[in-house]
Amino acid sequence: MSETLVQAAILVIGNEILTGRTKDANLPFLAERLEARGIRLAEARVVRDVEDEIIAALDALRGRYDYVFTSGGIGPTHDDLTAAAVARAFGRKLVRDAEAVRRLTVHYGGEEHLTPPRLKMTDIPEGASLIDNPVSAAPGFRVENVFVLAGVPKILQAMYDQLEPSLLGGAPRDKRTVRTALFESRIAEPLAAIAETYAAVEIGSYPWFRLGQGGVALVLRSADAAALTQATDAVIAMCRAQGDEPVAE
Amino acid sequence: MSETLVQAAILVIGNEILTGRTKDANLPFLAERLEARGIRLAEARVVRDVEDEIIAALDALRGRYDYVFTSGGIGPTHDDLTAAAVARAFGRKLVRDAEAVRRLTVHYGGEEHLTPPRLKMTDIPEGASLIDNPVSAAPGFRVENVFVLAGVPKILQAMYDQLEPSLLGGAPRDKRTVRTALFESRIAEPLAAIAETYAAVEIGSYPWFRLGQGGVALVLRSADAAALTQATDAVIAMCRAQGDEPVAE
Repeated sequence: MSETLVQAAILVIGNEILTGRTKDANLPFLAERLEARGIRLAEARVVRDVEDEIIAALDALRGRYDYVFTSGGIGPTHDDLTAAAVARAFGRKLVRDAEAVRRLTVHYGGEEHLTPPRLKMTDIPEGASLIDNPVSAAPGFRVENVFVLAGVPKILQAMYDQLEPSLLGGAPRDKRTVRTALFESRIAEPLAAIAETYAAVEIGSYPWFRLGQGGVALVLRSADAAALTQATDAVIAMCRAQGDEPVAE
Repeated sequence: MSETLVQAAILVIGNEILTGRTKDANLPFLAERLEARGIRLAEARVVRDVEDEIIAALDALRGRYDYVFTSGGIGPTHDDLTAAAVARAFGRKLVRDAEAVRRLTVHYGGEEHLTPPRLKMTDIPEGASLIDNPVSAAPGFRVENVFVLAGVPKILQAMYDQLEPSLLGGAPRDKRTVRTALFESRIAEPLAAIAETYAAVEIGSYPWFRLGQGGVALVLRSADAAALTQATDAVIAMCRAQGDEPVAE
């Protein structure tokens, strides 16, 4: 099997996530969408609204993965530091973008409404390309392999819808889930053997407990359809051999 | 104001978070609880079930922060690699823990039920101290400043409840929220001035949009009660000066 492995990382920026005030919804959204596009989300980080922290995380991630998606910190206030951090990380100047100014002029109904805080949202790293914001106009942008998106989920999602066609995906993986009532410890050994046999299949084991009941969801993923089917059949047969009739989906 | 700043990081371990299959609930839980204890959550990372990735993240975080909390990867299956990774990160041997064996023996009703996968959950880094698991017996553990917790939220929460008294907290911060109907761009400049004046107060600005409406929640946090009150009063006065009567809580 020849597979192009495309990997991405997410950098969530914002104190509100780290204090528990806001539950991040952007990681789950991007995780699902990237997976569906054949892009493996390999890592995620959450950092504070501190320019040096944002830069350090960006530098660690952008050299290592094909794509990096940031969320948050591109608004007009003092705690919005992402554009400046990205510019510094890439050694580029932060410059006023004429097209961004035009979009905000239209959105706010005239140039006279472009106060300094609004203009701040039109300052982007030199040479970056804009990502349209259909909700509140202030654009996201892309610099090389880094996509800078808004923190508000509705805006981030609209931005991602637009940029998605530009992403070079790998071979998308199919997924099968096998649910068994067996204990995880009961299936661990034969499951490890199956995982070893089918190296092209990622097999995760996720126990759950509720109201005194429990079970395990076994999740198999692979871009290799034949291997996925064989591994799934092997998992089902293994559960049956242990006396359980699992549910596969 | 003299304040001991205690900082923590969270390391979430598991492919299921990065594919979007599972929405992480441990970061929000720990974020809130740590904040309430006067411990600043400074960073969070999510990594895959890959030993080298876990070790690299652990090494980056444990040297930098007072406490590191990991979630996930301490079960009996092939994708549970956290104990081995922590042992390697600390240069310790992975050893069978007699007390962990005792707890699992009680839980499963006899030594004859301790199959190799179950015994795997009693192998912890040499010298680590156990953290009790009242749900499914297999313990978490602590090595130096790293707390290794289960990924299942109910178990993680029970483990945290026990270890919390052992955490040395800093000065807990109080929080005030001021809600205004003003646009973020309208208040950005005076807000930045207030943030600069009250350096001991962290001020976050969180816009929201819903059904064509919008507003901003201004969140102020500080361990300095007097500064917090003054900054909050300044924010309220600022909103009024702009023609809005904000709601403070």
